[in-house]
Amino acid sequence: MIHGDTAKKLSFHVGQRILISRKKKKLICVLNTMEHIIQKNEIAVSHEISDILKLKPGNVVDVEIAEKPRSIDLIKEKLNGKKLNKDEIFEIIQNIANNSLTEVEVAFFVSAILEKGMSLEETKYLTQAMVETGNHLHFKGVVVDKHSIGGIAGNRTTPIVVSICAAAGLIFPKTSSRAITSAAGTADVIETIARVDFSIDDIKKIIKKTNGCFVWGGSLGLAPVDDKIIRVEKIVNADSSSQVIASILSKKISAGSKHILIDIPYGKSAKFSEREALLLKKRFLQMKTVFKLDLDVVLTKGDEPIGNGIGPVLEIKDVIKVLTRNNSPKDLEEKSLFLSGKILEMVNKARPGKGVAMARSILESGAAYKKFLEIIHAQKGNVNLLDSLCSNAAYDIKSRKKIKIKHLNNKLFNTLARLAGCPEDKASGIYLYKKKGNDVDKGETIFTIYAVSKEKLRHAINFFRKNERKIIEIY
Amino acid sequence: MIHGDTAKKLSFHVGQRILISRKKKKLICVLNTMEHIIQKNEIAVSHEISDILKLKPGNVVDVEIAEKPRSIDLIKEKLNGKKLNKDEIFEIIQNIANNSLTEVEVAFFVSAILEKGMSLEETKYLTQAMVETGNHLHFKGVVVDKHSIGGIAGNRTTPIVVSICAAAGLIFPKTSSRAITSAAGTADVIETIARVDFSIDDIKKIIKKTNGCFVWGGSLGLAPVDDKIIRVEKIVNADSSSQVIASILSKKISAGSKHILIDIPYGKSAKFSEREALLLKKRFLQMKTVFKLDLDVVLTKGDEPIGNGIGPVLEIKDVIKVLTRNNSPKDLEEKSLFLSGKILEMVNKARPGKGVAMARSILESGAAYKKFLEIIHAQKGNVNLLDSLCSNAAYDIKSRKKIKIKHLNNKLFNTLARLAGCPEDKASGIYLYKKKGNDVDKGETIFTIYAVSKEKLRHAINFFRKNERKIIEIY
Repeated sequence: MIHGDTAKKLSFHVGQRILISRKKKKLICVLNTMEHIIQKNEIAVSHEISDILKLKPGNVVDVEIAEKPRSIDLIKEKLNGKKLNKDEIFEIIQNIANNSLTEVEVAFFVSAILEKGMSLEETKYLTQAMVETGNHLHFKGVVVDKHSIGGIAGNRTTPIVVSICAAAGLIFPKTSSRAITSAAGTADVIETIARVDFSIDDIKKIIKKTNGCFVWGGSLGLAPVDDKIIRVEKIVNADSSSQVIASILSKKISAGSKHILIDIPYGKSAKFSEREALLLKKRFLQMKTVFKLDLDVVLTKGDEPIGNGIGPVLEIKDVIKVLTRNNSPKDLEEKSLFLSGKILEMVNKARPGKGVAMARSILESGAAYKKFLEIIHAQKGNVNLLDSLCSNAAYDIKSRKKIKIKHLNNKLFNTLARLAGCPEDKASGIYLYKKKGNDVDKGETIFTIYAVSKEKLRHAINFFRKNERKIIEIY
Repeated sequence: MIHGDTAKKLSFHVGQRILISRKKKKLICVLNTMEHIIQKNEIAVSHEISDILKLKPGNVVDVEIAEKPRSIDLIKEKLNGKKLNKDEIFEIIQNIANNSLTEVEVAFFVSAILEKGMSLEETKYLTQAMVETGNHLHFKGVVVDKHSIGGIAGNRTTPIVVSICAAAGLIFPKTSSRAITSAAGTADVIETIARVDFSIDDIKKIIKKTNGCFVWGGSLGLAPVDDKIIRVEKIVNADSSSQVIASILSKKISAGSKHILIDIPYGKSAKFSEREALLLKKRFLQMKTVFKLDLDVVLTKGDEPIGNGIGPVLEIKDVIKVLTRNNSPKDLEEKSLFLSGKILEMVNKARPGKGVAMARSILESGAAYKKFLEIIHAQKGNVNLLDSLCSNAAYDIKSRKKIKIKHLNNKLFNTLARLAGCPEDKASGIYLYKKKGNDVDKGETIFTIYAVSKEKLRHAINFFRKNERKIIEIY
């Protein structure tokens, strides 16, 4: 932001790309003009910019018109259907990394990938470029990771899988995201009882002590271009298979993982149909050879929420129920054991077909819960913190007649939970008493909505009333 | 821009869509955070925003999280290939008009139109929606207009065509743009000797007095959504035929024109090949019936710059040479007469096949120049202003051997002129002594570069040296 008169004097115009530099740090930004609170020859920058350039009030910066990066022409060519080569993809990704492209230009890149697709080669270079423009972690030992593709409400297997595998001696440097469009990300869930925002050095210490972690990946600079692309892509959910693959693999490779399990949930109201999931699996497996990774892909049923809770606190409670063997939600337990078993088999900890049994015995022995507590403790947390997190308003959705449930819609339960306050209001969300196939008597509660304010509760209830038949389908 | 702590307190995050309102004015903007120069509970807004909301320092505004408009889902659907209906297109355009969509979202809309195309119906609704969300002009009499699609350097027929037609008694409310990616727009060219920024009421007075005008369309609010779309689309030159058609017709319909001539230049280094130009012509003519317009489309050769000058002052000098019959650039004269003749025939001022002769007699009689001076006078201008506009540095590009010119590249001459300072430095640009087909002796000047500073002149010369063979192709 500069003064309108200064802009005129310099022949700068609103929306123009300018290069701000101070000492050796440089950043390309988009110019805007403002009056009254800034004087002529002054510049005001956003928090984000002052952080990157390490600016303080009174600092002098150089400002000049930034040259239009060649990337823009490359993006244009991709929009017109041209295949990009390695150098071209690296140039675009480097320009995104050093903030030379605006979000509008990134939007055109995302559209081009979505509309024209990417070849196996292009996807490889996209992934490599994302890895190279970020930080890297390295760990000794058998380093594993898993990723469940999003879209399934309440699907909080990660803390359980990490605890089981770390208890078995595997190194599991799990970084997760916060919710962008869903009710909760793993980082939001763990944050109810522990810190998740650590430096790379902190993470190394946590892993050294406990074998595993559940931290937020956002501030680690692992494949940071992926985050920038996702921020734009999420606006229209324009995630193409190439972008999904590059996004997931770049994060895992950057985190130093050598054995990676990808879980693709499919089904009604999941992100993918079975056919799409199979196609995506095939494309993932093609990358296995390219990157010499020990990569496995499983397809799991994802046509209703998993567990009973949807929302940060409600989901961590489900996780603890499974780990403490106290009234476990069976679907969450079984899926966690299945994924853990796969990983144990991938790294030859368990013989083929024996992974689930091994995972179950680690869970039943209490070793997994012990490991979970160790990691939570290493992340400066405490499960007792849960007692202080409660909602102030709740509402039971009851059945008006005797019904049998056919389908619970993932997307709409996510929306419902967000209207109730997720993920910001930690204790808000949905608690499901009934799932697919269950019979419900007249007057019986199907689920409860929790919120921290009556207003938000009302929003959620209104949404449910309007969309009742889509949220819960019955026979 | 709000303080980081205020954002946290309100659970707002950077990049979020917020609604700012004061009294009855509302605007959706994207949130950013800043420190030091703004205090907690203060908000700083750009010039653009304070203009729209009519804000003054110390005003109190309401700020809330803006609901995500349904348009975003519609844009997503279009990206996925869905055909949009009338209501859906109107909703998107209305949301762009009232600033409910960010530029990133507009970029996805532009990509969707580009990649999936638009049917005749969709193009019709796009045009209608653009017209309805803007201001309108109405004039009595035979209201005509013309539009030459851009991309041809020096193609400044508009002031000549308007002068000839207005002298013949036609009403010609011509609104033009400023250069976005070219060396000069008609508004930049006229601005060297007259004002171009008028209110709608001013324009009505000018037209009443003189029959014609050459004003800047940017501040009139005629199809303002078109300007917003162009601002985004220009980044990657993603103009699809639907968007070009909607853009041109919405402006002309808003300006009250009933008889419209479209000029599509085609050829090497023009925007379109002959095949593409014919396709675009066909699509334009389909809209003729839809909008009940008297619409004609001509294809003109556009494979080199037209006239000798490229740049605001150099182009107005060419225009005056044609109008005063003093050393006219023949190609500019002939093209202007051709277009004027077409218009005169369209409105039955001239009999079929006799338009050019009529236009020529108006030009030769001095009536066109008299009309031009009248309009310039009505726009508070004076041709003598030209004397005070001069460049401070010039450089002759001479031929190093005897050559015959095969092609002068429009795009690269535009770039060259921009590097020399166009359109901001009015007197900067290129003056061509030689054109396609001309023989050039060793040592003879092909063109001269004009600039206001030696630095800009050097930039342009360097660019020429690096791209010499592409800028001038020889036999």
